[in-house]
Amino acid sequence: MGNLNAALQEASDLKKDRFAFKYLGNNKTLLMVFFNSSLRTRLSTQKAAMNLGMNTMVLDIAQNAWRLETGTGVIMDGDKPEHIREAIPVMGCYCDLIGVRSFARFENKQDDYNENILQQFIQLSGRPVFSMEGATTHPLQAFADLITIEEFKTKKRPKVVLTWAPHPKALPQAVPNSFADFMNEADVDFVITHPKGYELAPQFTRDARVEYNQKEAFRGADFIYAKNWSVFEDAHYGEILCTDTNWMVDEAKMSLTNHARFMHCLPVRRNVIVTDGVIESPHSIVFQEAANREIACQVVLKRMLEGVE
Amino acid sequence: MGNLNAALQEASDLKKDRFAFKYLGNNKTLLMVFFNSSLRTRLSTQKAAMNLGMNTMVLDIAQNAWRLETGTGVIMDGDKPEHIREAIPVMGCYCDLIGVRSFARFENKQDDYNENILQQFIQLSGRPVFSMEGATTHPLQAFADLITIEEFKTKKRPKVVLTWAPHPKALPQAVPNSFADFMNEADVDFVITHPKGYELAPQFTRDARVEYNQKEAFRGADFIYAKNWSVFEDAHYGEILCTDTNWMVDEAKMSLTNHARFMHCLPVRRNVIVTDGVIESPHSIVFQEAANREIACQVVLKRMLEGVE
Amino acid sequence: MGNLNAALQEASDLKKDRFAFKYLGNNKTLLMVFFNSSLRTRLSTQKAAMNLGMNTMVLDIAQNAWRLETGTGVIMDGDKPEHIREAIPVMGCYCDLIGVRSFARFENKQDDYNENILQQFIQLSGRPVFSMEGATTHPLQAFADLITIEEFKTKKRPKVVLTWAPHPKALPQAVPNSFADFMNEADVDFVITHPKGYELAPQFTRDARVEYNQKEAFRGADFIYAKNWSVFEDAHYGEILCTDTNWMVDEAKMSLTNHARFMHCLPVRRNVIVTDGVIESPHSIVFQEAANREIACQVVLKRMLEGVE
Repeated sequence: MGNLNAALQEASDLKKDRFAFKYLGNNKTLLMVFFNSSLRTRLSTQKAAMNLGMNTMVLDIAQNAWRLETGTGVIMDGDKPEHIREAIPVMGCYCDLIGVRSFARFENKQDDYNENILQQFIQLSGRPVFSMEGATTHPLQAFADLITIEEFKTKKRPKVVLTWAPHPKALPQAVPNSFADFMNEADVDFVITHPKGYELAPQFTRDARVEYNQKEAFRGADFIYAKNWSVFEDAHYGEILCTDTNWMVDEAKMSLTNHARFMHCLPVRRNVIVTDGVIESPHSIVFQEAANREIACQVVLKRMLEGVE
Repeated sequence: MGNLNAALQEASDLKKDRFAFKYLGNNKTLLMVFFNSSLRTRLSTQKAAMNLGMNTMVLDIAQNAWRLETGTGVIMDGDKPEHIREAIPVMGCYCDLIGVRSFARFENKQDDYNENILQQFIQLSGRPVFSMEGATTHPLQAFADLITIEEFKTKKRPKVVLTWAPHPKALPQAVPNSFADFMNEADVDFVITHPKGYELAPQFTRDARVEYNQKEAFRGADFIYAKNWSVFEDAHYGEILCTDTNWMVDEAKMSLTNHARFMHCLPVRRNVIVTDGVIESPHSIVFQEAANREIACQVVLKRMLEGVE
Repeated sequence: MGNLNAALQEASDLKKDRFAFKYLGNNKTLLMVFFNSSLRTRLSTQKAAMNLGMNTMVLDIAQNAWRLETGTGVIMDGDKPEHIREAIPVMGCYCDLIGVRSFARFENKQDDYNENILQQFIQLSGRPVFSMEGATTHPLQAFADLITIEEFKTKKRPKVVLTWAPHPKALPQAVPNSFADFMNEADVDFVITHPKGYELAPQFTRDARVEYNQKEAFRGADFIYAKNWSVFEDAHYGEILCTDTNWMVDEAKMSLTNHARFMHCLPVRRNVIVTDGVIESPHSIVFQEAANREIACQVVLKRMLEGVE
């Protein structure tokens, strides 16, 4: 909590004067490496770095370079002309900080939860590395979420509900994992609701209350945080077990809350995750949440720059 | 005319000292959003912004992010994971000005002429927005064209001819619409020539003289502005009615003019729109025209920055 | 040699203070044009330019723009909407320096060895142009290689061996051509080893010793520089004649050397060009070599900036 409160204070200060630390990034270069598509993270991270006076370089692995081999001992006579063990140290040569986006592949749960790609950047790049969403966590999103809850809460200890919602594609657990992780440390009454079988990894949910009845969970909530994720448990890892559209967040369910604010990390599928009515209502704070991505990232970059000589 | 003359003077001044207003863009970020490919606009807009000291971010929707839903009330369970009503305000979070390129789709004339995409950016982004070519207009091109005519004219009121030329693909009317719009306000003798059935939208052509005989139109011209466009009229909107290669601009037709300068917005298909001989002749000013794209954009960005607090 | 030594000294000085000449790039813009993918060149060139205070713009021809026609007199009614004779001068409008990457196509040896694309940029852009790897040379790589050899040599005149190695795809001769070209001017004992039929262009190899027995060539070497290339001679230009995996660089062959440093320009196919053991050994200096790409490019850009008014 102490750490979180200090970070929240730093975020609040930075938001009032985004350019106050522009000298920190002078002659420093951020490399952003994307193994997956991005909109918010791409723009908010560049903006945060520029606020701090950094130079930025963006590398889209799939489009600008080529496919990278990640296996050990492979005879590389196929379609991947470079090994990640060469590519990563080289990327580290030309920059001071590295941000990496690499989603879960759902091929092997252990590989995903070991954060193989991100860990290799940490081990091999020779530079400080931060996650722009890994296989299993998205801390910059969760920190932006926390900043947003801090800004909009109207009581000391608000009730925050993370609710699963349906989605046509199997999605990673990165966002709910990190959200749970942060909420468990924050001064909130945290409840998770999802269909049975969608239990998240216990290292993130810890002692959080799980309520399988969504409506029950919504009662008296101050914040509703909607998100889809695929199954975590081994037997069905990465699968979709439930397609029940009754889990969509709609006006009727929101009316059970304490005029709760609606949150989602975006992108969001309208009328699948949430109705048009809810996301367009005055209680939706998805844009304020997105805007805080810039601030959350700037706090992290600022701290990293302060630690780089 | 008064407005145009002031803008032309500002362009002329800026061209002499491109970096004089670098302080205006300090700590200001331009976001360039491309729904379609670009070469001149991409580079000239970045350059203009950098001349003014701005930071720039480029987002290629198709390559860097994902497809955006634009419909109303859609159950988004298909291939588009985000609605433009979320994406646009989020883009606005991370910048101070937004440039948008989005071509006509020729699916629905009303949608194109309503400039649906551009209008949604104006309404939803919370930022000043400018067109980097919309569905139906390309004002930065027309302004660059006007600057170029101003630089190369040898008489007070030159004859300027916009001539249709053949093209294998159906092209939007954006460039000729804006060119006609600007020429109608400029101190020029403006004539449009095209095959019957290719009449442009009257809100842009207004009282401009249309001459269906291309050779007749060329007589005594001081500037020949070549461009293909597809049909505007409802019954054949977006179609190709004429493939007559006789409409290509060649040396014989240019000899009918008053040593006219040849202009085209580029990209241009050689020996389809215009012969090698004409575009490579000393009277071709297509490069000077392209170079003025930077200046035209810089005038617009400068004015927008002066209006942003 | 005099020129090379001066450039090496300049590289050494720049490496100690990369930001000393930041004023040179003020209000100067580098345009990087990629007809082919890139990782090291993309990042190191941007970094070098930013070290010098330049603005940078990146244009990926395939992704950001469209295909360019390069033929003469073509009726452009196909899939290429712009001719390179228009595109290049336009690119030159918006920048002060241009870097170009364009690989050999292996369609026509004469076209490749004429460096058609690069030469057209030099002739048509109106700006100083440098190669970010052309069809037949890669001087920035060779200069970085020379800097690296200078840093790691332990005797006045080290033995440097360029060795061919197998590869599943036909690769250009650009890297070995430029490496041979530079080594022939440097104060080294230079030996080339490759299977018969893989002789490189004599304008680059000149009087260099060619030893067809790879093991013989390795004896007493101080630097082993591995690289695949396809056939140069007319009858089999661009083909793969040898797939003999015995040419791979392995620990046994390295043991014949004088504790030689292992070099490769990267990307490298492990266990095809070189074994995991060799490239991961303490004698591998591939990362130091890659890091010097930034320095090599910065020397070139600095000199170009000093020559631009």
